[in-house]
Amino acid sequence: MTQASIITIGDELLIGQVVDTNSAWMAQELNKWGIRVKRRVAVGDVWDEIWQALDEEKKQTDIILITGGLGPTADDITKPLLCKYFNGSMIVDEGARQNVINIFTRLNRPMIERNLKQAEVPDVCTVIPNKRGTAPGMWFEKDGKVFVSMPGVPHEMKGMMETDVIPMLLGKFRFPAIIHRTLLTAGVGESFLAEHIKDFEASLPEHIRLAYLPNYGMVRLRLTATGTEKEQTERDVQTRFETLQSLVKEYMVTNEDEPIEKTTGRILEANNKTMCTAESCTGGYIAHLITSIPGSSAFYKGSVVSYANEIKKDLLGVEAETLQRVGAVSEEVVIQMAKGALAAMKTDYAIAVSGIMGPDGGSAEKPVGTVWVAIGSNQKVEAHKLSFRFDRMRNIQLTTANALNLLRKFILAGN
Amino acid sequence: MTQASIITIGDELLIGQVVDTNSAWMAQELNKWGIRVKRRVAVGDVWDEIWQALDEEKKQTDIILITGGLGPTADDITKPLLCKYFNGSMIVDEGARQNVINIFTRLNRPMIERNLKQAEVPDVCTVIPNKRGTAPGMWFEKDGKVFVSMPGVPHEMKGMMETDVIPMLLGKFRFPAIIHRTLLTAGVGESFLAEHIKDFEASLPEHIRLAYLPNYGMVRLRLTATGTEKEQTERDVQTRFETLQSLVKEYMVTNEDEPIEKTTGRILEANNKTMCTAESCTGGYIAHLITSIPGSSAFYKGSVVSYANEIKKDLLGVEAETLQRVGAVSEEVVIQMAKGALAAMKTDYAIAVSGIMGPDGGSAEKPVGTVWVAIGSNQKVEAHKLSFRFDRMRNIQLTTANALNLLRKFILAGN
Repeated sequence: MTQASIITIGDELLIGQVVDTNSAWMAQELNKWGIRVKRRVAVGDVWDEIWQALDEEKKQTDIILITGGLGPTADDITKPLLCKYFNGSMIVDEGARQNVINIFTRLNRPMIERNLKQAEVPDVCTVIPNKRGTAPGMWFEKDGKVFVSMPGVPHEMKGMMETDVIPMLLGKFRFPAIIHRTLLTAGVGESFLAEHIKDFEASLPEHIRLAYLPNYGMVRLRLTATGTEKEQTERDVQTRFETLQSLVKEYMVTNEDEPIEKTTGRILEANNKTMCTAESCTGGYIAHLITSIPGSSAFYKGSVVSYANEIKKDLLGVEAETLQRVGAVSEEVVIQMAKGALAAMKTDYAIAVSGIMGPDGGSAEKPVGTVWVAIGSNQKVEAHKLSFRFDRMRNIQLTTANALNLLRKFILAGN
Repeated sequence: MTQASIITIGDELLIGQVVDTNSAWMAQELNKWGIRVKRRVAVGDVWDEIWQALDEEKKQTDIILITGGLGPTADDITKPLLCKYFNGSMIVDEGARQNVINIFTRLNRPMIERNLKQAEVPDVCTVIPNKRGTAPGMWFEKDGKVFVSMPGVPHEMKGMMETDVIPMLLGKFRFPAIIHRTLLTAGVGESFLAEHIKDFEASLPEHIRLAYLPNYGMVRLRLTATGTEKEQTERDVQTRFETLQSLVKEYMVTNEDEPIEKTTGRILEANNKTMCTAESCTGGYIAHLITSIPGSSAFYKGSVVSYANEIKKDLLGVEAETLQRVGAVSEEVVIQMAKGALAAMKTDYAIAVSGIMGPDGGSAEKPVGTVWVAIGSNQKVEAHKLSFRFDRMRNIQLTTANALNLLRKFILAGN
C-alpha cells in the first residue's frame, strides 16, 4: 500500500504560536484518493533537523509532502536545503519569475530584489506553479520516492495540491480504495456506545475498522474500509454502515460527516423555514458557525448578540424587572430573548442562550458553565438548562453544539 | 539542552478529521519553562507505528509527551502498548478507580464495567490524576528519559499538564531560559520588513533568532533568545526588542504577543470607551473573537448580525432605497449600518462590515473578496473598501482582523 508522510517545517509550530491546520486538510485530501498518511512530523527551521526528517520519512513511506519554510526571509532554509539534499544547483524559473512580477503589478506594491529570489529553484525539481502567491512548489523524485515541497500559507498550499500535486500523484502511483463513513450521535457517552455495539464491532472483518471520536459532548462513529477495488469496498462498508445506523438510531444526529450546524441547516432548508439567534454568552459563535456554511442565507437571517443587558432590553424586549429579579442567566430571560428575537427578526425559529462561560462570573447558585437555552417558534418556546465546566472556549462550543441539536430535535418533533 | 518530542496518537489525526490543537498548546506551555520541543509526530492507532515512534523519539529527545489513544474503546491501544513497552503488568489504581466512580456519580450516569477499565494502569508507571475525566495520565522513566502519556481530550490534557506534568518535569530536569518577544505589524509585507531590518537581523548574536510570521495579511516578528541564566537572557532580548520596535514603529500594531482583538480591546478599556458591531458578511465572527476574551464585557456591548437585508433595515435602520440602489455591499450601506448600530446599541464606537465572502455571490463589478468596512463614533463615520481573494473562511478572518485594526487606528487618531 502506498503511504505518505507529511513534514511541516517552522519554529512557530514547535513553540506553539501557530496551530497546524495544513496537515489535517492535506490528510483529508490524500485520503479521498486512497493515499494513507502514515505519519505527520513537525520540525523547526533547523538544517539538521529538516535533513534528518527527510531521511527518516523516506525510509517509511513513498510520498513525502513538505510544507513551510519557503518564505523570502533568512529564517526560511527549506529551499537551499532541498537543493543540496537532491544535489542540484539553483536556477531562475522563468514562469515563477513572471508570476512574482504579475502579483506585485496586480497588488501595485513595490517589488524588491528579495521578492525575485522566490523564482529561484533547484534545477533537479519539477516546478509546481503557485497561482496564489510568490513561492513556487517543487517536486523531486529519488529512489522511487516522491518529495513535494509547498508553501506553508494554507490557501497557497491548497491551490497547489488541488490543481497539480494530486493529479501528478495519481499519474505516478496506483492507490487502493479507502472509504470512510461517519455518523454523529448525541446524548450518550463513548463507553455506553461501545458496550451497545460491541457485537457489531467484534463482527467486523479485518479490512473495516471502527473508531469512536468524542467531540463537544457528542460522539462520532467512523467506519473505515480499505480494499483493492473501489466499488466493492464501498458496498462492503455501506452494508455495515446501515447496520450501525440501525443500532444507534435513537442517538443518531446525522449519518453524514458534517458538523451539527450543517445538519440543522439542511433540515431548515428542506422544510423551507428560517431561523435567527439571540446570543449572550456565546457572543456570536452560533451565528459564526452557521454563516461559515456557504449558502446559509437561505435559512439564517441574523443574530442579536446581546452581550450587555441593555441590548437584551433595547433590541430583544427583555423586561428590566425580570433581569433585576432573576438575573440574565435564567429560564425567564432566555424565553423572553427567544420571543424578542422571533419578533425582531421575523423568522420561523429562534435560539436564545445566556450563561456563565468563565473563567470568572460564577457563584454558588450559578457556577461557571451554567447555561440556559431557549428554542422557540411562534407557537411554542421551550427552555433547557445545561451544565458544563472548565474553560471558556469549550463552554462556548458546547453551548453552541447543544443549542443547534436542541433546535434540530424541536423541528423534528413537529414544532 | 533538554529537548522534548510530542507524539499524538489517533487515526483521526492522520485522516484529517481532527485538527491537532493539543501540540501547539503543549509546546507553548513547555517553552514557558525553557523546554524546547524538537519534534512533533502524529501516528495512527496502529501498534507497530506507535512502538516505532517511541523508539525513534527516545533516541532524539529526553522528554516524550504522548497524547491520545487512552479511551475505553477497542480502537484505543496506547495503554496496553505502553505496559508492554515498559515491561509492566496491569493493576487497578485505587485513586483512578475512585475518580471514575465519583465522575459517574456526579453526572448521574449509569456506570458499566468498561468505565472501570479506565482505572487500570501498568504497575511500572507513576499515575497522574485526571481531575477532568476518567483516563489517568501515566509517567514512565527509562534510561534517563521521561515518557508521559495523557488523554487526547484537550481540557483533560491541559489540566494534567498544569497541575502535575510541568511541576514533575521541573523537579527532574534543569532547563535553560528561553525568552520570546513578539510584535505585530500591519500594512507591509514580509519581504519589505526583511529588507527594512536586514542590518538589525545580521547584527543579532548566535543565541537570539528572528522569525517572520505572516498571518491574515499582518506580519508578526518574533525574537527568541536562549541562555543559561533567565534574567540575563531577558535583558539580552529586551535590548534587541526595543531596537526592533523603534525600527518598525510606523507599522507596529502591538508589542505584545496577542491577537488584534485584544490590542483594540485594551485601548478601549484604557480610554473607558465601549464598542459594538454590525456584521453582515462576517456573520458574528468579529463579535465572537472579541467575546472570546474574558472580561470583554467591559468594552463590548453587542452585535447585530444582519445577514439578511430585512435585519439591516429593521434593526439598523438601513434605508430600503439605498439597498435597492447600490446594493448591500456598498459604502453607503456600511455607513448607515454603523450609524444604526451606534444608535441602537448606544456605544462610543461601532464597526460595520458588508462584503462578498465567496465562494458564490461575486460579480464583475463586485468580485468575491470585496468588502466595505465602516468605522464610526457619534462624531464621525469613515468607510474603507478592502479586497481579498480565495476562500470564505480566510476572507471572514481577514475582514475581521482588518476591521479591528482600522478601529484601533481610528481611536488612536483621536476620534
